[in-house]
Amino acid sequence: MASSLFKFFTFLLLGFFFSLMTPTVNAKILRYKWEVKYQFKAPDCYRKLVIAINGKTPGPTILAQQNDTIIVELKNSLLTENVAIHWHGIRQIETPWSDGTEGVSQCPITPGDTFVYKFIVDRPGTYLYHAHYGMQREAGLYGSIRVSVPDGKTEPFTYDYDRSIILTDWWHQSTYEQATGLSSIPFKWVNEPQSLLIQGKGRFNCSLVTPSSSNISEICNASDPECGHYVLTVVPGKTYRLRIASLTSLSALNFEIEGHNMTVVEADGHYVEPFIIKDLHIYSGETYSVLVKADQDPSRNYWATTNVVSREPKTPTGLAIFNYYPNHPRNTPPTPPTTGPHWNDADIRLAQSRKIKSHKGYIHQPPLTSDRVIILLNTQNTINGYTRWSVNNVSFSLPHTPYLIALKENLTHVFDQTPPPETYDYANYDIYSKPNNTNASSTNSIYRLKFNSTVDIILQNANTMNPKNSETHPWHLHGHDFWVLGYGVGVFDPVNDPKKYNLVDPIMKNTVPVHPYGWTALRFRADNPGVWAFHCHIEAHYYLGMGVVFEEGVEKVGKLPSSIMGCGETKGLKGP
Amino acid sequence: MASSLFKFFTFLLLGFFFSLMTPTVNAKILRYKWEVKYQFKAPDCYRKLVIAINGKTPGPTILAQQNDTIIVELKNSLLTENVAIHWHGIRQIETPWSDGTEGVSQCPITPGDTFVYKFIVDRPGTYLYHAHYGMQREAGLYGSIRVSVPDGKTEPFTYDYDRSIILTDWWHQSTYEQATGLSSIPFKWVNEPQSLLIQGKGRFNCSLVTPSSSNISEICNASDPECGHYVLTVVPGKTYRLRIASLTSLSALNFEIEGHNMTVVEADGHYVEPFIIKDLHIYSGETYSVLVKADQDPSRNYWATTNVVSREPKTPTGLAIFNYYPNHPRNTPPTPPTTGPHWNDADIRLAQSRKIKSHKGYIHQPPLTSDRVIILLNTQNTINGYTRWSVNNVSFSLPHTPYLIALKENLTHVFDQTPPPETYDYANYDIYSKPNNTNASSTNSIYRLKFNSTVDIILQNANTMNPKNSETHPWHLHGHDFWVLGYGVGVFDPVNDPKKYNLVDPIMKNTVPVHPYGWTALRFRADNPGVWAFHCHIEAHYYLGMGVVFEEGVEKVGKLPSSIMGCGETKGLKGP
Repeated sequence: MASSLFKFFTFLLLGFFFSLMTPTVNAKILRYKWEVKYQFKAPDCYRKLVIAINGKTPGPTILAQQNDTIIVELKNSLLTENVAIHWHGIRQIETPWSDGTEGVSQCPITPGDTFVYKFIVDRPGTYLYHAHYGMQREAGLYGSIRVSVPDGKTEPFTYDYDRSIILTDWWHQSTYEQATGLSSIPFKWVNEPQSLLIQGKGRFNCSLVTPSSSNISEICNASDPECGHYVLTVVPGKTYRLRIASLTSLSALNFEIEGHNMTVVEADGHYVEPFIIKDLHIYSGETYSVLVKADQDPSRNYWATTNVVSREPKTPTGLAIFNYYPNHPRNTPPTPPTTGPHWNDADIRLAQSRKIKSHKGYIHQPPLTSDRVIILLNTQNTINGYTRWSVNNVSFSLPHTPYLIALKENLTHVFDQTPPPETYDYANYDIYSKPNNTNASSTNSIYRLKFNSTVDIILQNANTMNPKNSETHPWHLHGHDFWVLGYGVGVFDPVNDPKKYNLVDPIMKNTVPVHPYGWTALRFRADNPGVWAFHCHIEAHYYLGMGVVFEEGVEKVGKLPSSIMGCGETKGLKGP
Repeated sequence: MASSLFKFFTFLLLGFFFSLMTPTVNAKILRYKWEVKYQFKAPDCYRKLVIAINGKTPGPTILAQQNDTIIVELKNSLLTENVAIHWHGIRQIETPWSDGTEGVSQCPITPGDTFVYKFIVDRPGTYLYHAHYGMQREAGLYGSIRVSVPDGKTEPFTYDYDRSIILTDWWHQSTYEQATGLSSIPFKWVNEPQSLLIQGKGRFNCSLVTPSSSNISEICNASDPECGHYVLTVVPGKTYRLRIASLTSLSALNFEIEGHNMTVVEADGHYVEPFIIKDLHIYSGETYSVLVKADQDPSRNYWATTNVVSREPKTPTGLAIFNYYPNHPRNTPPTPPTTGPHWNDADIRLAQSRKIKSHKGYIHQPPLTSDRVIILLNTQNTINGYTRWSVNNVSFSLPHTPYLIALKENLTHVFDQTPPPETYDYANYDIYSKPNNTNASSTNSIYRLKFNSTVDIILQNANTMNPKNSETHPWHLHGHDFWVLGYGVGVFDPVNDPKKYNLVDPIMKNTVPVHPYGWTALRFRADNPGVWAFHCHIEAHYYLGMGVVFEEGVEKVGKLPSSIMGCGETKGLKGP
């Protein structure tokens, strides 16, 4: 009797786990074989080394449906360099080892090795993938993930066609040269990008190049078919869902399609209460879906443009052609390209951020209170003469034994076990001045969160080491979406500001900007067992220490695959 | 009784192992802490990224005495790139895992990790260290090892001072750009070097640079203190032992000190029957000691020069100053620099090779017969449109599970178990023409040698894919010295040529050239348990497949340290 009852409960339990582990009916398994390799390419007509996937940058677009399982067999054919790819916006529920964050979720993939990423895309929406190791992302290793709703399900808007574009900025220096400059005394900043690319294409002015070699056309050739204007062809009268993502390394962008309004309907995989804009501000790591109707004079083409905002632009406008069929895609629009709003108008950027609310029919109710509030002040500092970015005066550095493995295997000696600071001395800190104490310390310690607790994060912006300067930082959280409870100007007031939080219809996102001299308040549930990075998505800022790491429920994580091991103290650890 | 006998034998046995394992009395343990890092440097006045050790290229010189134990703790601070360092000329007896050959003896060292190389320098002589991973050596990661005789021991020559210089060639492109070009269709050759460096210094003509950026002096500055002429200061009347090594990536060199004869006394750690030369031909991977007496007019300085031979030179003469104290080290010699012999005069190079015999008092008698003869024909080929170098029509590629680990752990699936070809069809092959069958195959299979057997290797040169062209290839053997039995012109005749072998006083070396359209015959004892690479020391040629690997007595190798693991199939293998 007891035995059959036991069997019955075992059966129930197995059924429960089975339902957790297996994809829903109709969900597919999508397999990709990717080879990552250095190649010479000329995305903006200037030929340089890029990191391509199967010969392409941007890499192949992953087109999936909700609940599909994605399997990417990633072969590293870089010569002496490792790699890791992060699936940006995918929460990796039950697969935290597939997050692709070097130093956090895995050892880097060594040259010649093939690593298998396997995860479920459990929600429809617009996501990304990109390198998450060193500064490799800006060498061109990135692409789109588009997850549609299952057959038969509908979305709260309609459109005729679905298109993805990724916006980036582009340098002619190698990432090695950039990273070495950032780690040098005197500090050598990466400077402004040479080009803005739209879906991997742009056009640099080759006459600015006077190469040391005699053959300029080998280095920069304006008629190289690899470069030029990206063309988005539309059929007059049709409505397009345009999935716009930014993977800039540095630049905040304004995106505009000349003469066409856009209706914002999705942000980071969540439906937005629709609103109409003429131009979209987008920060690195963000994705938006906008609806665009081809309802203008169909006898001509139009410019689609990206312009740098928040930093004084030194980079020409990024140009694509919004091509009305059947006009020739190379017909240059008769009007000058749009130049965007004034780069330094922070108010309109803040106003747009505040406009983004959850679609009324798709509200995920946030918990009304939180269990813990962590305030993260970002400042520019120096450590032993090196320029760094810091959070609460502590600059983050990755250990070389990934946290996920260290925590599961109790390797407590591989990173500092003292928790990082929970806040800063906001009563006495002047966010409008250069930091008094420019000298920060360095740490690899992490925030350990109580499993299933609710955590508030306040991102607090401040002045850099340059007078009267505060920058925009887009922060990206791995393994989670968070509710965006509010944006503010000035110093966050922990007593009064929370009273103004939007607890009614906040949007959920995975990436959010903190505006110059402002603050941004987020809330999330620490309900995804694993270890998760939260960092500024500006490549050089994360490299210089602008990030933190959260652990939650690591004891609930399943057996780690041996494929994530091989570095630091994980040599000789037995796999499954 | 039996028990005490057992104890007695155990004691004897322990004593025996102790004598094997511990250095001889008076031998020292030398510890080095090295950090490998990218840095901007201007060795020839042109500023570019180099890989430096503790901020320097060439790296620190290791000064040891025979039987010392060297311990190098190597921290990899490259951003995303692995590293491995080979101790060139050190046989690694009982420490084959310290040979530093990626893919053969170890997994590459991942960024952030510290790897400990530990080995005994068991013979006096002139040795080298350098990166042995991808094409990193030519990024500047190299240095000298000088092993002197123990206190009280003498050498068969005398001198007043001992100096080391390494000769290299230098490109302004990155190794990544070079390697990517070599792996592209169409093939992009690295071309001739921009500079020849002497002990890491040279002077490029900055007026040839017209950079895209405005500030030329940041890129190339003739008065940069990092570049210029290396200065070798000598005291009139004194005799100098000059340890000259070549670590060129491509170039065969002629080295000359204007107006000074040199007496060759050592080659690759072996004493040479002394002979006098005006100029020295030296190939990548070779080391020589020459004695130079400062016996010329002491009122002036003299040029020390390197000139490219064997390839049509497109690189200016490398210049150093042989500075007679107390003349100012920057006093330019009043005479023009020497330009060396004609680059295409192969006869004088062959003649010099043949002159190098063992010192009569230090002859290591070679075995008079061999157990196995392997003939290695080198040809240029294509594989699926890619340009490659091959040996017996097979182009070598490294597996990503190092052989040493694969063989010890019986991972037979990680490389092809079919042995590579033992010879080529010499009766029908025309070495003077472009290969008929330009299409080669690729392999990672190896030669397994019977332990303690005697092996002959015949290096056979041939025509490249260009008409009337055969190049000089310096081949380097790991884990061994070999006897150089002879050099020949034309096709090696396996019946008659061995009759002409020098079995009386052949020099032992670890690196030897095979001259254009010629052959070189070597003999060695397969008596060092481990797995050993044998390859052309031209960086691009090895990268393109011009190498083989030997295994011998791998079952006698001790327990492998887990620190060499972490890549390929070695993840999850337990260490000691």
